[in-house]
Amino acid sequence: MAPIISQRDVEFMVYEFFNCEALTQRERYAEHNRETFDATIDIARRIAEDQFLPIQMKLDMNQPTFDGERVHMIPELKVALDTVVESGLGASTADFELGGMQLPNVVASAAYAYLSAAGSTALGFIGLTNANANLISEHGTPEQIEKWVVPMREGRFAGTMAMTEPSAGSGLADLTTSAVRDEDGNYRITGNKIFISGGDHELNDNIVHLVLARIKGAPAGIKGISLFIVPKYMVNEDGSLGDKNDVNLAGLWHKMGGRGHTSTTLAFGEDGGAVGYLVGEENKGLSYMFHMMNEARILVGTGAACTALTGYQYSLDYAKERPQGRLLSNKDPLSKPVNIIQHPDVRRMLLAQKAYSEGAFALCLYGSALYDDSQTAPTEAERSRASLLLDFLTPIIKTWPSEYGPKANDLAIQVMGGHGYMNEHPVEMFYRDNRLNPIHEGTTGIQSLDLLGRKVPMNQMAGYQATLTVMRDLAAEVATTFPKESADLLAAIEELDEVTMTLLKQMGEHPIDLVFANSVEYLEMFGNVVLAWIWLRQGAISQEALATESHEDEQNFYRGKLQAMKFFFEYQLIKNATSAKLLKSLNATTFEMQEAWF
Amino acid sequence: MAPIISQRDVEFMVYEFFNCEALTQRERYAEHNRETFDATIDIARRIAEDQFLPIQMKLDMNQPTFDGERVHMIPELKVALDTVVESGLGASTADFELGGMQLPNVVASAAYAYLSAAGSTALGFIGLTNANANLISEHGTPEQIEKWVVPMREGRFAGTMAMTEPSAGSGLADLTTSAVRDEDGNYRITGNKIFISGGDHELNDNIVHLVLARIKGAPAGIKGISLFIVPKYMVNEDGSLGDKNDVNLAGLWHKMGGRGHTSTTLAFGEDGGAVGYLVGEENKGLSYMFHMMNEARILVGTGAACTALTGYQYSLDYAKERPQGRLLSNKDPLSKPVNIIQHPDVRRMLLAQKAYSEGAFALCLYGSALYDDSQTAPTEAERSRASLLLDFLTPIIKTWPSEYGPKANDLAIQVMGGHGYMNEHPVEMFYRDNRLNPIHEGTTGIQSLDLLGRKVPMNQMAGYQATLTVMRDLAAEVATTFPKESADLLAAIEELDEVTMTLLKQMGEHPIDLVFANSVEYLEMFGNVVLAWIWLRQGAISQEALATESHEDEQNFYRGKLQAMKFFFEYQLIKNATSAKLLKSLNATTFEMQEAWF
Repeated sequence: MAPIISQRDVEFMVYEFFNCEALTQRERYAEHNRETFDATIDIARRIAEDQFLPIQMKLDMNQPTFDGERVHMIPELKVALDTVVESGLGASTADFELGGMQLPNVVASAAYAYLSAAGSTALGFIGLTNANANLISEHGTPEQIEKWVVPMREGRFAGTMAMTEPSAGSGLADLTTSAVRDEDGNYRITGNKIFISGGDHELNDNIVHLVLARIKGAPAGIKGISLFIVPKYMVNEDGSLGDKNDVNLAGLWHKMGGRGHTSTTLAFGEDGGAVGYLVGEENKGLSYMFHMMNEARILVGTGAACTALTGYQYSLDYAKERPQGRLLSNKDPLSKPVNIIQHPDVRRMLLAQKAYSEGAFALCLYGSALYDDSQTAPTEAERSRASLLLDFLTPIIKTWPSEYGPKANDLAIQVMGGHGYMNEHPVEMFYRDNRLNPIHEGTTGIQSLDLLGRKVPMNQMAGYQATLTVMRDLAAEVATTFPKESADLLAAIEELDEVTMTLLKQMGEHPIDLVFANSVEYLEMFGNVVLAWIWLRQGAISQEALATESHEDEQNFYRGKLQAMKFFFEYQLIKNATSAKLLKSLNATTFEMQEAWF
Repeated sequence: MAPIISQRDVEFMVYEFFNCEALTQRERYAEHNRETFDATIDIARRIAEDQFLPIQMKLDMNQPTFDGERVHMIPELKVALDTVVESGLGASTADFELGGMQLPNVVASAAYAYLSAAGSTALGFIGLTNANANLISEHGTPEQIEKWVVPMREGRFAGTMAMTEPSAGSGLADLTTSAVRDEDGNYRITGNKIFISGGDHELNDNIVHLVLARIKGAPAGIKGISLFIVPKYMVNEDGSLGDKNDVNLAGLWHKMGGRGHTSTTLAFGEDGGAVGYLVGEENKGLSYMFHMMNEARILVGTGAACTALTGYQYSLDYAKERPQGRLLSNKDPLSKPVNIIQHPDVRRMLLAQKAYSEGAFALCLYGSALYDDSQTAPTEAERSRASLLLDFLTPIIKTWPSEYGPKANDLAIQVMGGHGYMNEHPVEMFYRDNRLNPIHEGTTGIQSLDLLGRKVPMNQMAGYQATLTVMRDLAAEVATTFPKESADLLAAIEELDEVTMTLLKQMGEHPIDLVFANSVEYLEMFGNVVLAWIWLRQGAISQEALATESHEDEQNFYRGKLQAMKFFFEYQLIKNATSAKLLKSLNATTFEMQEAWF
């Protein structure tokens, strides 16, 4: 049977790419060491194998149903999620004193990779709960933390984020859910929210919704949005559950994939207004929500990468064992068919999957490592540089894995031919699960506007320049070992920089809607450069290890990394030339297309 | 509500791109005229709207079940298929004397486009039956035609093609189903076949399987394969049904999409051998089957194109009516949100869908038109030239729409955001339906070997040269009207030709498995050139029409075609540069990748 994901690759990431052992010298992680890291990863792997994997396809085939009163799910889901909570993994990065394991995010993400790969759908419940708890920890009052965060960390309560509305969609500026202050200083919330993942279920005692709403009289647009804690059940002073709040499940959505995770429409305030508790200050809700959303964006990227990793392993396993056809060089019909991994085109599809999925995974872990550094790096300079990089890279960490994860899963289907198309195997489900990722938490289009319109110019381009510097530094560092790839990466960075400067100049000279018409091409181009850097770093580590490593399995592992690096440069990075051409020429084809011409 | 496909585009294809009215001067079509063509297309459109569209999503959600004895389907499917048969469309291209409508293939394909777009799954039953009947008409005896083809044309019998086996897959050389001659001169067939579409159901009185099998003692490999008619029920001399033959349904497959069409495992000869009737000569079965398979490949391409067309119309309609967000140039939060079609990135996704789907559709109809010409063009020279072109282009007609159809559907999902991911709308189903097309009737990998390994060198490259000539001629013809696109197309043809010559030269100098390692890139590159030619032709017709056309709707239509042409050249054709680079340098990255390195 195929491994969920490659254990050797996870190890490579944690200890060779990120050198996580060094983190134990920081005060926050002082009680950890390689053994505790390994143990955590091992527990996650075992829960993934024992609890998540066996129900992965069953969850897909038995999506939650709503009988008008209650949501029904297969009972195995609760068992699996409870196991995660009981293992402590549910709050792996939280403070010891809040019941957490106080692990570095990068180690926790590596451990979670197994759970995500074996059950991204199931893990969604826990991921959202953590992100919700993190937001309240950051912006809530001590009382709010005590009341809502603690039970979420303990796994008793679940958390959601409730932003999207039926008539506003991604246009948060137009949301209409309203909040009215009542006598006791709280608020009454009225409105409808759609696509709320985990919006109703009975997996936990209570559900804590973080709801964006507009306080009566607030300014129009995004400057008048506030954030509220709106629980499913009221909570008494002693922590016990009170009455049901005025939040009702209006219906379930039925999705292409990710079917184990309820997607709901919630009606707030049908009976006079749901009680809501303001988080932080009025009208600053969107900035708080972005705290959660940035975390959710990294989670989306990571989920996309993990689903790609597991599809790769599954199709690789199949390709190694499935005999079919002969090499073109062999015309003898009496010879034995070869396993399909021997066909160069199958190897191409596997190598592309490896390059996409392992590259995306490394990028996402880099996001987690930057988060750790932003919190715990020894100097203020290091911390703020990590923040700067993370902030800048977030749209890329969200998007590149989300776009290339489904492409990897698509190749897994193709490797397996007709069998890949059948739901007797999980690869078509992986594709369907992964297809949500370029949509939720900000579509690819929205990420591209964020990158080009906000992140690039922000702080006199400080994040942009810092990112380019990191990449140029590596290229210089490995110029002797990898003269070709080093030169290719430098050229790609210069090309990207030229495009960027051209676009910024155009912003002053042309209609802004035209300059942004190809923003998705820009994001794609930037992503390819960042991934080339990620691969060059993997290559450099592998080349160095190869020099001293004599064990054959290890040699094979590193050679695979080097070949995937080569593939990425020669098959993927070269595509930037066409994007650069489109962008530099300010191609107006889509901008000029008229509605009436369609 | 969105139209199934654009009626104006179908009209453009039939009368402007292909000038089908001129076909009525040929003897075979002498009884037809524009009115009969229009009437046929109109009937198809109405059946599609009235019978297929209402059950499209129901078929997806209620896939056939097998209770161990019978296959169960929703009853509306039979009603819809019977309506097609009763309308005469079931045998639209067959001879009058066989109960057909004797229509040109290109007109029939245009009519079928509506049925395919509204119910590719449902239409699969009829498409396979026709292809089966066409094969027996061509290679069977008069008695076989009378016994099997006539009832298929009348819709009483259905037909299948039974090639794939569990342990051979695409490797037909290794098939093991056996045939033994019995006393009465017929054969007894024993073996298992998988992925047989329409392999068992009760939509028709009988099912005629065309089965590839190996006669005892035949040579190994593809030279020892024969073709047999194996009915589900025996047929008596008077045409009445006799006993059940020894063919049994062993199980149904459950697919990612195309769920209305049963995919079966069939067991032949579990009880002594299924009676089979040899078609044509012994050991020539594969060449006969290719007659059916070539037709099926065009059908696959057409189905992929039609599913792309309908997804495009659906998402276009949505984009025109869904308000969300504001243009970047508008900072006023009090202004009204715009419909999403106003956002340049949404226009990009719609224009890409238009370019892919209408281009693919035109290419597939070109395949049908070539088939018509191969049969009925006035001179032998024209007929054989059409055959040559069709034969050469078949892997491209099969593959380009199959690869870009799903890409178009993917963009339809993305245009609709979260709503596109929900199965309350059909676009996610279109994607799932379309995803089969790069797999069945020869995967993309297999098509690429067919193109580069067989079709290019065949007959001293006659098909290859004829194809390039057709494209060069158009480029020369429109050089004044479209100097840029004409030059771009010529340059792309020269680049393709250079790559081709390089590859052919390499075949003598390098291991054949290495030379073919990037064959899919070659097919991709060739497809883009052919599509650029298709778009340039659409552009030329539109430009000419615009000069004299003053009606606004018509002007808009033609301007849309011109813009899609522009898009294709500027966003798609330029991608060939990277493929050319890979191919010319004989990139060995995937070839050199070792199994142990994965």
